[in-house]
Amino acid sequence: MASQQEIAAFIAAEFPQTRVRILEVGDKSATVAHEIGRAELRPGGTVSGPVLMATADVALYVAILGELGIVPLTVTTSLSFNFMRKPSADRRILGVCKLLKLGRTLAVGEVSLYSEGLPEPVAHAVGTYAIPPVDRSGAGS
Amino acid sequence: MASQQEIAAFIAAEFPQTRVRILEVGDKSATVAHEIGRAELRPGGTVSGPVLMATADVALYVAILGELGIVPLTVTTSLSFNFMRKPSADRRILGVCKLLKLGRTLAVGEVSLYSEGLPEPVAHAVGTYAIPPVDRSGAGS
Amino acid sequence: MASQQEIAAFIAAEFPQTRVRILEVGDKSATVAHEIGRAELRPGGTVSGPVLMATADVALYVAILGELGIVPLTVTTSLSFNFMRKPSADRRILGVCKLLKLGRTLAVGEVSLYSEGLPEPVAHAVGTYAIPPVDRSGAGS
Amino acid sequence: MASQQEIAAFIAAEFPQTRVRILEVGDKSATVAHEIGRAELRPGGTVSGPVLMATADVALYVAILGELGIVPLTVTTSLSFNFMRKPSADRRILGVCKLLKLGRTLAVGEVSLYSEGLPEPVAHAVGTYAIPPVDRSGAGS
Repeated sequence: MASQQEIAAFIAAEFPQTRVRILEVGDKSATVAHEIGRAELRPGGTVSGPVLMATADVALYVAILGELGIVPLTVTTSLSFNFMRKPSADRRILGVCKLLKLGRTLAVGEVSLYSEGLPEPVAHAVGTYAIPPVDRSGAGS
Repeated sequence: MASQQEIAAFIAAEFPQTRVRILEVGDKSATVAHEIGRAELRPGGTVSGPVLMATADVALYVAILGELGIVPLTVTTSLSFNFMRKPSADRRILGVCKLLKLGRTLAVGEVSLYSEGLPEPVAHAVGTYAIPPVDRSGAGS
Repeated sequence: MASQQEIAAFIAAEFPQTRVRILEVGDKSATVAHEIGRAELRPGGTVSGPVLMATADVALYVAILGELGIVPLTVTTSLSFNFMRKPSADRRILGVCKLLKLGRTLAVGEVSLYSEGLPEPVAHAVGTYAIPPVDRSGAGS
Repeated sequence: MASQQEIAAFIAAEFPQTRVRILEVGDKSATVAHEIGRAELRPGGTVSGPVLMATADVALYVAILGELGIVPLTVTTSLSFNFMRKPSADRRILGVCKLLKLGRTLAVGEVSLYSEGLPEPVAHAVGTYAIPPVDRSGAGS
């Protein structure tokens, strides 16, 4: 397991452009928030789809790291999204992830995405991640 | 139907941050390219997942506009991704979309994503889009 | 809204082969159970994939009918599954559905699938359903 | 690699209830057909969703076996479907699978599903399969 600070440092290094912050992590779950500014908006006042997708991807990754510790080679193998409501232009996007499975080689989790403070999710995602084999030789990485 | 120039102008207005360009559109298909620079890369030399996701989303949207004409209210309702190979850090991402269905209220299409010049896809996406009801009153939009 | 008995009668008529029973419905959710016998098993003692998929599909349909009333033309437009654990050969499959959105034209829900009595889900599904336009002319159906 | 006859015998043993036949296999692809009778139909004259889902699952499995040989432990990890047109009640369902990736531990493929003889697909599926580690000790299976 890794602490929230360790995970935040790792995410900042691995995803240097990300505007996602970790709010909570632990107990097979994670909550993250994506800042929203002009770069994240579309005309008409809504959040662009890739912002939602990036938030879900990071939320899942953070929840996995919270259980496994820092495992840099973990890779997203699939992500499915359903977009349900128009996000608000002036609220952060929250991603609330719950892991459904954490196996030896595969993790599966779901993420509900919200405009902060509003009760109904704007989108929902399910993702799977491949976990690299553990090196038990002691050489470490 | 809309011309490639009309679609490019519309995409530039609707997605002002996008670095996706239209290479071809028509015949229920579209090919687009996402420029890759430092902002699109992750440490270790690969393209970030949201760049692939944004490319697929625009490719699908462009293919739909190529058939229906400029329909600004079309919204993505679902997108599913499978990530298959590590993209190259020094090649553009190409998205090659083929529409599978173009119904009255729903469009479905698939996108193969490539590192330009390499034969095997780095990812594959399937998306569905809701098409707003046509206003047949003559008032137009 | 429709009662559990009305929905059960409708499901029996619409899906005459189904071995799924409704355990609960209401409050934007539903729980159903699929009987397991020799026809549902695979060699090695597990439940076949299509049994899980049918259970999820019915669970979603039942949850929608529980909110909308009997709407026979509702059609599945997409279903995504993640298979996480080997189901037990001697337990019913339970499908626990929660609707994420119930819009005018589209419903979205998720389903956790369990071997009855075991805590961890064997699979997870997300589905979308198209809801036919309401005929407000009074002609009814 | 396995021959079509070997794969057919294996599928018949692994999925004893299946009504899917193999029409072609090889070159990272497969075509299968699902017989349609009263058990596969729904009132109103259409093919039930689980029949389409079963056809896609077998088509993907057959295509993988065609490349890897008989690998009994291969398991479906995810399957996503988009349902696009109402299938015909009096035509077999064809599943045409093309593998997108065949890695060491994961295979990904897509399947177009047709009512036999009609040009437009009734549904489209994408699936991923986990491939068990090869036993290179010589003990074989």
